[in-house]
Amino acid sequence: MQIQYILEVVGTCFFAISGALAANDKAKPDWFGASFIGFITSIGGGSLRDILLGSYPLVWVHDLNFVYAIFIGVVLASIFFKVLIRLRKTFFLFDTVGIAMFTIVGTEKALSLGVNPVIAAIMGMFSAIMGGVIRDVLTNEIPIIFKKEVYATACLCGAIAYLSLGYFGLERNCNFIISALIIIGIRLVAVKMNLSLPKFIKEDK
Amino acid sequence: MQIQYILEVVGTCFFAISGALAANDKAKPDWFGASFIGFITSIGGGSLRDILLGSYPLVWVHDLNFVYAIFIGVVLASIFFKVLIRLRKTFFLFDTVGIAMFTIVGTEKALSLGVNPVIAAIMGMFSAIMGGVIRDVLTNEIPIIFKKEVYATACLCGAIAYLSLGYFGLERNCNFIISALIIIGIRLVAVKMNLSLPKFIKEDK
Amino acid sequence: MQIQYILEVVGTCFFAISGALAANDKAKPDWFGASFIGFITSIGGGSLRDILLGSYPLVWVHDLNFVYAIFIGVVLASIFFKVLIRLRKTFFLFDTVGIAMFTIVGTEKALSLGVNPVIAAIMGMFSAIMGGVIRDVLTNEIPIIFKKEVYATACLCGAIAYLSLGYFGLERNCNFIISALIIIGIRLVAVKMNLSLPKFIKEDK
Repeated sequence: MQIQYILEVVGTCFFAISGALAANDKAKPDWFGASFIGFITSIGGGSLRDILLGSYPLVWVHDLNFVYAIFIGVVLASIFFKVLIRLRKTFFLFDTVGIAMFTIVGTEKALSLGVNPVIAAIMGMFSAIMGGVIRDVLTNEIPIIFKKEVYATACLCGAIAYLSLGYFGLERNCNFIISALIIIGIRLVAVKMNLSLPKFIKEDK
Repeated sequence: MQIQYILEVVGTCFFAISGALAANDKAKPDWFGASFIGFITSIGGGSLRDILLGSYPLVWVHDLNFVYAIFIGVVLASIFFKVLIRLRKTFFLFDTVGIAMFTIVGTEKALSLGVNPVIAAIMGMFSAIMGGVIRDVLTNEIPIIFKKEVYATACLCGAIAYLSLGYFGLERNCNFIISALIIIGIRLVAVKMNLSLPKFIKEDK
Repeated sequence: MQIQYILEVVGTCFFAISGALAANDKAKPDWFGASFIGFITSIGGGSLRDILLGSYPLVWVHDLNFVYAIFIGVVLASIFFKVLIRLRKTFFLFDTVGIAMFTIVGTEKALSLGVNPVIAAIMGMFSAIMGGVIRDVLTNEIPIIFKKEVYATACLCGAIAYLSLGYFGLERNCNFIISALIIIGIRLVAVKMNLSLPKFIKEDK
């Protein structure tokens, strides 16, 4: 599990970078504000999952490596801002890998706490998306997940895939990789082909 | 308690419908977004109450019927959108019955956890209104409860009525119905007669 | 600890006043809305801290004096609105004393629950600022802490000072006062001299 732990810490760092950059697009925050938003974006989803499940202590409260990873992410975002902005496409890939991993890890954690698979899938998705939702609320944006990109939906599909494949006995590490690839695949295809979910209500005319 | 359980599940379904419709007014979400907001509107108030009280597991985490009710509500909202919009007045009645029920159930739950009646009344009101508050925050609106309609106030009055009548020994089912009717009555009269609470601060001319 | 308890209750009352006044600037709420925002501003930071730490029961759920203090604060804000607005400068001082106290008390509480000092400092800052952040989100403002004033930063510095001085063996009451004065000092100087943190990203040109 060593590798996965490292991936999680690195994923947290990427989330902090992405949070700080996104915050800057909108609210033009000072140093503290950007760090704060990077922090919330990183830990928001997992914290909400754990609070809803009543699972204490929260990961980052218990393990400082996540806090350090966030701090490093924010510093990197500030120093390499221009490079990172130019690297948006590369960065988009990192972000996608990040949410894929967070989804599966979150689903697993919920399952390990004994909840029903339906709830576990919801919790897995929450782990990946709620940090971004909170970030958007704080910067006074309508959360993007309500409008564009097959974002949360990809996470939900991946979580369901993970649970189904696990149910049919697929070995865990193998399952982890396949389910993550499903999330990554759906999102990349959706963005590449400019797909989106149908509007909830079709406008007349 | 069988009947009450059914009412709660049905109430959750109505909250999901109302959440999905309200979301659509504002953010024009896709299918996922509308479902997400329907979900949050339904479970937000009760979840916040339970988190504040430290009462685990949360109802919907523990009992999937609530999750299914929400899903059905969202599907109904999408299919019967036009009918539901035309039925707004009927719907308003359902919504009012819903918040009345959620208030009393929430008050009871808080009481059963041993808190002071003052806190129980606050928690009852939170159960009914906080889902809507979170919905408004997510869709970037100023929560309506801050501005119009005697909405939360009706819930608070009902919760206080329930606690007072219980204190004077009124039988529980009877109390439940009377207190719910008080909430429904206050809200209907307020909306009918266009009453609202006085502004906090009167503007000088 | 009697004096500190009284200070905390009084501080909560001041937070409620400040919340109700700030709400009025923006959302022009009715009586209920202003009380609600005053309530959230007062208890939001400490509640979030306790929820993140899994420390139950929450202070105000357990001890009604805080709820009464909030109620008194809202009534005072309504009655003495004009006087209070004119007293903004005096009031600013109260607010500053309030966040200083909340920071140290929050840091202490987190420490007493056995978390790492880094987390304790974050939790101390959260105790002081998150009520205001939630208030700004509810009234549809971008939280001011992201943009102006050395506000949260002062709290963080104070929390770090408290932890450092405690580490070096300074007596607790003495430490409390010095650390609070550090927060008050930083904020007063920053506002007086119109200091702010550097923007996260410097605009070109």
